[in-house]
Amino acid sequence: MAIRKAGAASRVVGVDLDPGTLNRACERGAIDEGFLNIDEGIYEAEIVILATPVRSILRILPELVTKISPDTILFDLGSTKKAIISTVAELAGPVRYIGGHPMAGTEHTGIDHADDQLFNNATFALVPSNPTDEKAIEALSGLVHKIGARPIIISAENHDRIVSMTSHLPYLLAVVLSLAVEKMANRENKTWEFAASGFRDTTRLAGANVRMMTDICLTNKEPILSGVEEIKILLDTLAEHIEKGNELELVRALTQANESRTTLFGERRSD
Amino acid sequence: MAIRKAGAASRVVGVDLDPGTLNRACERGAIDEGFLNIDEGIYEAEIVILATPVRSILRILPELVTKISPDTILFDLGSTKKAIISTVAELAGPVRYIGGHPMAGTEHTGIDHADDQLFNNATFALVPSNPTDEKAIEALSGLVHKIGARPIIISAENHDRIVSMTSHLPYLLAVVLSLAVEKMANRENKTWEFAASGFRDTTRLAGANVRMMTDICLTNKEPILSGVEEIKILLDTLAEHIEKGNELELVRALTQANESRTTLFGERRSD
Repeated sequence: MAIRKAGAASRVVGVDLDPGTLNRACERGAIDEGFLNIDEGIYEAEIVILATPVRSILRILPELVTKISPDTILFDLGSTKKAIISTVAELAGPVRYIGGHPMAGTEHTGIDHADDQLFNNATFALVPSNPTDEKAIEALSGLVHKIGARPIIISAENHDRIVSMTSHLPYLLAVVLSLAVEKMANRENKTWEFAASGFRDTTRLAGANVRMMTDICLTNKEPILSGVEEIKILLDTLAEHIEKGNELELVRALTQANESRTTLFGERRSD
Repeated sequence: MAIRKAGAASRVVGVDLDPGTLNRACERGAIDEGFLNIDEGIYEAEIVILATPVRSILRILPELVTKISPDTILFDLGSTKKAIISTVAELAGPVRYIGGHPMAGTEHTGIDHADDQLFNNATFALVPSNPTDEKAIEALSGLVHKIGARPIIISAENHDRIVSMTSHLPYLLAVVLSLAVEKMANRENKTWEFAASGFRDTTRLAGANVRMMTDICLTNKEPILSGVEEIKILLDTLAEHIEKGNELELVRALTQANESRTTLFGERRSD
């Protein structure tokens, strides 16, 4: 929808298993034409964009690459990149593959939540594979710019490590907090009365699509597991300050978090 | 401001150390008159409301109770209740004290952020002390209703245990996540580019007032420390599912969190 809005492609074609989704995508102006059959969908495509959960991308790839022309650029929007890059590297024959990951999205999925402004000002990771295909990166950088996002070229390894902390751990913390409050509610029946806007915002990510998040967790294990350990160590340190009544150290840690966040998002954006 | 807007009191008087704050409070219509001297402020007051961080309330109480009339109802808005109730119980002579805690607020403080709509539809805890003063509870329930909030009568112990999980742990998780991402940014210079709306919302509470939160942590130690242990156990369980690739168990936990949150806030309020 953003590509069509920006006039960044002469034709945008969609492929989906559900004819209803293709109809809605046409109605909403996201695509020029929809196909149930992938072969028809990718016919003469300059760029093929895979926009499914990560492990679906991994399943689609081996057959797909046998069908696309050698000139076609294969691109994807999967939330983790190392598993996809590794799978591409193991495929028979050369593929013009570049990984992509827009840092935009909500916990909603589906064509009815499509938004042509979603990528406005968002970071859009471009992850090169071997051998580096400069022309493909240039083409995709241009496309990303046209839809209003900011391309940033990064290795799969660095990408996966960074997003484990900026996206995956926030999700897992939202999940454990939701589970812990539910357990509390089973013991104390007034609990839900006390779940106000702070709890709502902190747990917002727990509403994300479970299938997408399962794929992310299972294709980014190592960085996520290190992240969990890091979070536990930081929690233990705070707990120790609280237990011992070590006010000076506690204030220092809380102030550091407060300032770090204010520097990043500013006072006003924190509303 | 909400009390005056609702016409719930014939006169609202403010006491503060800063004359500028009192002037702004008059200008904004929050108070009829301001006093720098607490004796003048509480003269002939029917209800005295303490609205400072918890440990300031603890410091003010001993002298204050010697100055108020025996008929005056002493009320407070402190975020933890057990420490205040215990301090009141140890004071010489009987005091008509009821604890209060509105589940409303933002990370902003000060008269310029005052909002007469803040309490609309919010849970407002009323925490009786011994001996139970039914007339005082009735008077405060009426006041709470008039400003648009929902009074809920609860013991200090249950209150502190519940809010440790619905408010204090969300805050501490926001803090550790902010600290962890800052550490990541020191190693990977592209980190901040990847901190998008999910990270922003999950860490919103880390922007809360540090002095207020320090007082909360240090006056609600035991429930907070149990909460930290509970969160760590839940995190370990998720990490184990991820490490072992135990997809079924992982999906079950993520789905439970998703459904619990959707039941509470609904699909639409999660935006």
